[in-house]
Amino acid sequence: MEEVEVAPPRAHEVRVRIICTSLCHTDVTFWRMKEFPAMFPSILGHEAIGVVESVGDHVQEVAVGDTVVPVFLPQCGECDDCLSARSNICSALPYRPGGMPRDGTTRFSLAATGEAVHSFLCVSSFAEYTVVDVAHLVKLDVVGPASLPPEKACLLSCGVTTGVGAAWKAAAVEPGSTVAVFGLGAVGLAVAQGARMRGAKRIIGVDLNPDKFEIGKKMGITDFVNPNDVAEKTVSEVIREMTGGEGADYCFECIGSVSVMAEAFQSSRSGWGKTVVLGVDGSAAPISVPSFDIMRGRSVTGSLFGGIKPKDDIPMLAQKYLDKELELDEFITHQMGFHEINRAFDLLTQGKCIRCIIWMDYGAKENGA
Amino acid sequence: MEEVEVAPPRAHEVRVRIICTSLCHTDVTFWRMKEFPAMFPSILGHEAIGVVESVGDHVQEVAVGDTVVPVFLPQCGECDDCLSARSNICSALPYRPGGMPRDGTTRFSLAATGEAVHSFLCVSSFAEYTVVDVAHLVKLDVVGPASLPPEKACLLSCGVTTGVGAAWKAAAVEPGSTVAVFGLGAVGLAVAQGARMRGAKRIIGVDLNPDKFEIGKKMGITDFVNPNDVAEKTVSEVIREMTGGEGADYCFECIGSVSVMAEAFQSSRSGWGKTVVLGVDGSAAPISVPSFDIMRGRSVTGSLFGGIKPKDDIPMLAQKYLDKELELDEFITHQMGFHEINRAFDLLTQGKCIRCIIWMDYGAKENGA
Ligand SMILES: NC(=O)c1ccc[n+]([C@@H]2O[C@H](COP(=O)([O-])OP(=O)(O)OC[C@H]3O[C@@H](n4cnc5c(N)ncnc54)[C@H](O)[C@@H]3O)[C@@H](O)[C@H]2O)c1
Ligand SMILES: NC(=O)c1ccc[n+]([C@@H]2O[C@H](COP(=O)([O-])OP(=O)(O)OC[C@H]3O[C@@H](n4cnc5c(N)ncnc54)[C@H](O)[C@@H]3O)[C@@H](O)[C@H]2O)c1
Ligand SMILES: [Zn+2]
Ligand SMILES: [Zn+2]
Ligand SMILES: [Zn+2]
Ligand SMILES: [Zn+2]
Repeated sequence: MEEVEVAPPRAHEVRVRIICTSLCHTDVTFWRMKEFPAMFPSILGHEAIGVVESVGDHVQEVAVGDTVVPVFLPQCGECDDCLSARSNICSALPYRPGGMPRDGTTRFSLAATGEAVHSFLCVSSFAEYTVVDVAHLVKLDVVGPASLPPEKACLLSCGVTTGVGAAWKAAAVEPGSTVAVFGLGAVGLAVAQGARMRGAKRIIGVDLNPDKFEIGKKMGITDFVNPNDVAEKTVSEVIREMTGGEGADYCFECIGSVSVMAEAFQSSRSGWGKTVVLGVDGSAAPISVPSFDIMRGRSVTGSLFGGIKPKDDIPMLAQKYLDKELELDEFITHQMGFHEINRAFDLLTQGKCIRCIIWMDYGAKENGA
Repeated sequence: MEEVEVAPPRAHEVRVRIICTSLCHTDVTFWRMKEFPAMFPSILGHEAIGVVESVGDHVQEVAVGDTVVPVFLPQCGECDDCLSARSNICSALPYRPGGMPRDGTTRFSLAATGEAVHSFLCVSSFAEYTVVDVAHLVKLDVVGPASLPPEKACLLSCGVTTGVGAAWKAAAVEPGSTVAVFGLGAVGLAVAQGARMRGAKRIIGVDLNPDKFEIGKKMGITDFVNPNDVAEKTVSEVIREMTGGEGADYCFECIGSVSVMAEAFQSSRSGWGKTVVLGVDGSAAPISVPSFDIMRGRSVTGSLFGGIKPKDDIPMLAQKYLDKELELDEFITHQMGFHEINRAFDLLTQGKCIRCIIWMDYGAKENGA
């Protein structure tokens, strides 16, 4: 814990008081990473919810007091990508590691020495206050203790939205499909839920940690494979056997391992099998796919944020929670105060939590804001 | 040239008298391949047209005297894949290297010694007579010297259909798109033509052989990149520069080199760029794709026969030729008799032809059958 100065927002920027934040595996991956694009010192955290404290010039979309969800992916609303239904990768504001999207500088500095502290994924939510570009903010009017509690809305900021979106947008799972989900953390469980919402018939979950099966069942997982239990075979051989020799229609990698990505591909059906890569491999190693195998009509794609356009789609997901179509409660396995954040890292790396909600003011959390 | 016995057709099989055949790069790749799935001795050739000479039991679809196009990809018409619009990889008759699809045996033997000679891709058209499973035959009623000459119909048996199909089915190119085609042989030129038919605005051709540019222009190529002329840069850097920094919407690999496949992927646009692998790399090396790059909404897919269902779609392409919507004449750069087939191998490997038509009875070719 360090005392950090948070400079006022510049043009198009918003200073946000964080209500609560949660730990996503991407924070862990960058925390462990030794090289670029990781940069130190830096304030991690990118799954959060907060309240607008002040706004810079040219900010019309949000006003002081609004409840906002910051998102690592921008949506400028005007570039070719933002205007196309096919893309969610805003091309106007490409990611600049360590800095703000428009000028690459940071708003953080150490109070003691003045040393600059890098920002992370344009969010940096492991702080009481942060500065976020307005293109990275989604205004959510429905948040409140009686409707959508902030700790639930916080989940829509990254992992859950990514998983649901991957089934819905990146893969566009067809009714009656067989789906394999590799890794049953928040992202994988959200994929399962998204696949179930899209009418998947069978959802096979793969995880080394058998504790994930109970919660998986609640999210729609129908079958479970533990790679440790099939030592004689590869997981893809087991999945092909489970599916009458064919393989799954859709495979999702939600771990961040290129070897699992290759195994997911081999578990996909010839003719139309689609593999969607969501996990971030910190080694930046390439995915390796036999060229003869891809020719049999299979495809591999990857997605940031599951293909979701933050400003268009997050309010829709919030509404689905209110309409009881989207389950969020089960994702929250732990809640704690900000001073306990290191425990959240332990719980996630040991596979003991799905999501830990980290409150900036744990005592006041019942008020919801 | 060897004298070979061709056994009568068994159940579901048809003995075909070949009218003419053409040389596709896949024949060259398997001819050079030292290991499985290549098998020797074998009768190569898989792009052809012929006439039904005799039929085995249970053959209703074609009768003696019918003009037929044999195809390396079967269409049983009844399996999950044949019944789905999403796949053209018939799952009822998986490929058995060296043999017939139903029992794995061959109908060829050396006349002198009786030694078995393997069949190739279920077609083996470098012979006066061959035996083909009815699932691998497309009946074409419109063939004749005055309508669709056999040497034009022959092109629909593999390369041209694969390329047109890849633009139309595997990629489903959208109007106004920018397309990059790697390799301007018959397959690549057919991709260009298919992309133009689908309304592509800009079609960038990549080839080491500058002779391919003149013919490319006739097929719709608008820009040309010769990797030898851009030594300071990679081809993908050049293509990104040509497209305002973005990359192409669709990239097609029509060469058969995993390094070019990776370059094609890097030439594809983030957000929605699609890379379609058509080339067959004889080394069976894997395609390598950086996992960070695929996450930006790009995809890689591959296709056999461009996603075309032979029996449904080849007659439609024949009609498009008759309606002057599909250009076939320009693909035929050379014609010769069967005894000159080694010259066809020389011409193709030296990049001097697009397609060589090899007539079984060169003197009678004007009659069309
Ligand atoms: N694409 C995106 O936009 C996006 C968004 C959020 C998270 N992510 C990435 O998604 C991945 C998952 O994130 P999360 O927060 O759900 O992580 P998590 O740590 O909660 O879950 C990962 C799960 O994978 C399991 N696992 C680990 N190695 C395994 C193996 N070899 N075989 C089978 N199971 C294994 C773990 O037991 C755990 O249950 C991470 O790589 C994260 O960086 C990507
Ligand atoms: N997927 C399928 O169903 C299918 C069907 C037919 C053919 N194929 C494959 O498609 C590929 C093309 O077949 P074709 O008959 O058109 O071949 P071809 O030999 O006529 O054309 C290949 C072209 O690639 C060019 N080339 C070679 N190396 C290159 C490089 N490094 N950079 C740029 N250009 C290069 C050559 O100059 C030539 O013009 C082959 O690999 C073949 O096996 C696949
Ligand atoms: Zn995240
Ligand atoms: Zn944008
Ligand atoms: Zn071919
Ligand atoms: Zn079939």
